[in-house]
Amino acid sequence: MTSHPRPAQLNPPLRAVDVIAKKRDGRELSAGEIKSFVARYTSGEIPDYQASAWLMAVLVRGMSRAETAALTRAMLDSGEVLDLSQLSAAKVDKHSTGGVGDKTSLVVAPLAAAQGLVVPMISGRGLGHTGGTLDKLESIPGFNVRLSTREFRRVLDQCGCSMIGQTEEIAPADRKLYALRDATATVESPYLICASIMSKKLAEGIDALVLDVKTGSGAFMEREEEAADLAELMVETGNRAGKKVVALITSMDQPLGTRVGNSLEVLECLEVMRGEGPDDLRELCLNLAGWMLYLGGAAQTPELGKTKSGELLESGHALEKFRRMVELQGGDVRAIDDPALLPGAKHTVEVLSTGRGLVTEINCRLVGIASAVLGGGRARKEDSIDPSVGLVLHRKLGDPVSLGEPLCTIHYNSETRAAEARALLAKSFTIADTATRKKSLIRRVIAGGS
Amino acid sequence: MTSHPRPAQLNPPLRAVDVIAKKRDGRELSAGEIKSFVARYTSGEIPDYQASAWLMAVLVRGMSRAETAALTRAMLDSGEVLDLSQLSAAKVDKHSTGGVGDKTSLVVAPLAAAQGLVVPMISGRGLGHTGGTLDKLESIPGFNVRLSTREFRRVLDQCGCSMIGQTEEIAPADRKLYALRDATATVESPYLICASIMSKKLAEGIDALVLDVKTGSGAFMEREEEAADLAELMVETGNRAGKKVVALITSMDQPLGTRVGNSLEVLECLEVMRGEGPDDLRELCLNLAGWMLYLGGAAQTPELGKTKSGELLESGHALEKFRRMVELQGGDVRAIDDPALLPGAKHTVEVLSTGRGLVTEINCRLVGIASAVLGGGRARKEDSIDPSVGLVLHRKLGDPVSLGEPLCTIHYNSETRAAEARALLAKSFTIADTATRKKSLIRRVIAGGS
Repeated sequence: MTSHPRPAQLNPPLRAVDVIAKKRDGRELSAGEIKSFVARYTSGEIPDYQASAWLMAVLVRGMSRAETAALTRAMLDSGEVLDLSQLSAAKVDKHSTGGVGDKTSLVVAPLAAAQGLVVPMISGRGLGHTGGTLDKLESIPGFNVRLSTREFRRVLDQCGCSMIGQTEEIAPADRKLYALRDATATVESPYLICASIMSKKLAEGIDALVLDVKTGSGAFMEREEEAADLAELMVETGNRAGKKVVALITSMDQPLGTRVGNSLEVLECLEVMRGEGPDDLRELCLNLAGWMLYLGGAAQTPELGKTKSGELLESGHALEKFRRMVELQGGDVRAIDDPALLPGAKHTVEVLSTGRGLVTEINCRLVGIASAVLGGGRARKEDSIDPSVGLVLHRKLGDPVSLGEPLCTIHYNSETRAAEARALLAKSFTIADTATRKKSLIRRVIAGGS
Repeated sequence: MTSHPRPAQLNPPLRAVDVIAKKRDGRELSAGEIKSFVARYTSGEIPDYQASAWLMAVLVRGMSRAETAALTRAMLDSGEVLDLSQLSAAKVDKHSTGGVGDKTSLVVAPLAAAQGLVVPMISGRGLGHTGGTLDKLESIPGFNVRLSTREFRRVLDQCGCSMIGQTEEIAPADRKLYALRDATATVESPYLICASIMSKKLAEGIDALVLDVKTGSGAFMEREEEAADLAELMVETGNRAGKKVVALITSMDQPLGTRVGNSLEVLECLEVMRGEGPDDLRELCLNLAGWMLYLGGAAQTPELGKTKSGELLESGHALEKFRRMVELQGGDVRAIDDPALLPGAKHTVEVLSTGRGLVTEINCRLVGIASAVLGGGRARKEDSIDPSVGLVLHRKLGDPVSLGEPLCTIHYNSETRAAEARALLAKSFTIADTATRKKSLIRRVIAGGS
């Protein structure tokens, strides 16, 4: 008879289960409720099983703009925000939602730095059918993506751009929540995606951000409207945090450029930085860099920024910045001039066309999976990758092809894997008599208010 | 380079995350998917955090009748089903969704047994504002609700009814899922409630079941339509399992009978079994027993079953069955004739009316909380209870009351708790000049097909 606690209805404290119930019922959570829930989950006070029920409720019921901003802030506040105030230049970054052959980061970071901006880029690794910037960079022998905050600052100070992986200190709530989302079918929520991306980007201490939101068969958001909704959400969330943000909705209906695979993609980026390379890749890089310059105050308009960026590719200044960054991050700069120093696959084999006509469709997701099957990607986060394998496309959307002509070349180290990739690639191309209307690479631009 | 697992998209196994995603997207799960998910959760292979995301998806998206039946079956199959085939009589049980002063089990089980049926009743404990059959029975000194399956069978064989708590062997999936639901705001789903109740009832090895689904201010389902939906779901789920099931939708707009609190409620049940006691309690007991007799084949119609039951209350046969059950389960049978042997509170105090007129409303939930505050209920499962405390109502809905006349009497052991309960009870009664239309105790009957 010592203690008979009072029923909870009488003295309601802020219990995790009440926050879950509120979102379950579709009601709007206050910033305080979200902040407390995220902080207590990060500290371990709220267990995974309560967080996952809450994530599912968020996925199904959605969030208001205010809730999304509060969640982003709570995740940001769970860790450190880089203080780059000793660098006087504008800090601008670019982020892509991920695709196949999407390698623009390696070009736009040095491009923007070559024009005086600071680009403190914290990137991710590839997963599933999409590639990741860190994996690509690591195909350069010696390149170190695991810098301390101090080393990161030093590289930024000395060359204006640096590209590293997420540190322990940045948004730990996001790391913990992301792992949980992955296991509980709660990845596909624009609100959770937005908070995850934006909390990490805001932790970079940036002034402005250019978002490349992919849409199409190789993107997470296949439908353009979905991509636009996510883009608007991210732009507004950035604006609410006082940052200039613009989003480009771009096509992922076919791989970007012609090469897919880590080492192969680095080679293609080097071509672009020499003023060469495929048109679509070059065009997207210039547009993204143009917007970065504009938001960072280094160009009067995005168009002028784009023109300026084109000149810096021709002049070799972007390549010089890249070379300097590689050097400062421990990479072998000789690999920049001698492709033989980058990892190469042992064998190649062509996939030939079994029809004649025009390429009307390329299943971008299948191409990404083919590269992953070869060893160039991961099914699970823990998997290791083979930087040397991948594929080179010889035909893209709208290109004519005759019977027996090569559609692409597979770079491989295992016959079994090559056979599997070949089957996937053969299925990836659709050849038909009549052309389909080619969609523009940049579908639209979503600019915010701030 | 040793192992590059293939992306999951290529060779999809039946992963927990896929089952969660399917329900998240509102698609219907197969019986096999539900069975596998529940079995793997019960064994510990699927962790709590995946189960809670799935529960939230089920709560929000709902389930078809087939899914609900499959979930019930999966939970039932996680444990043992009692084999009562050596008892030739029809096995019939009654289950209530819980309320305040809801004590019919103690009367209807011996009533049905007195007419030759077998009533293998597995009951629960009180939580929040509602009471529980096991807590009430335990106020009889020595009464043991923790019988082994073997002892349970022996009592049923010797007296036709027995009332115990859930054993380890019965529906372990339900115990595990219920604890998780409680912590993740996923209690309030009719599909999950149905599967939880019906899996435990089907595990009793019964032939038929009478459900008492409460509606009103003291019920979990306040709105009658919600209660009716749940009732239909349970009736159909029982029918799909080959059982005869009927549901009575009954009022919980005020406490049932006049006494709330464990020992006090046992006293009231003894009154009913002596042919006395409050009308509403007696009436509901007779209706429930009437339906039990009808479904069990011991009466031609529910009405005849009701008449027969009334006679058995008058004749004292029901009380004799109750006495025998108490004896077989180790209880002190002297307490049945001498109320002084039941736990009594040290003090009593009356709550007086501060107005005059008619009682137009009794907030049933507040009354339940008042009893819990006194020590008669639990805020959390782990709390202990005080069997002696509670309250006796002197006025019910529609009754006239004058200024200063007693509305109820509080039975208490702690002055602080009494003061708190008093404040709640004073707020529970609404006195007005004009009467509101009194709703019938039994709102409707939902009978199934099988």
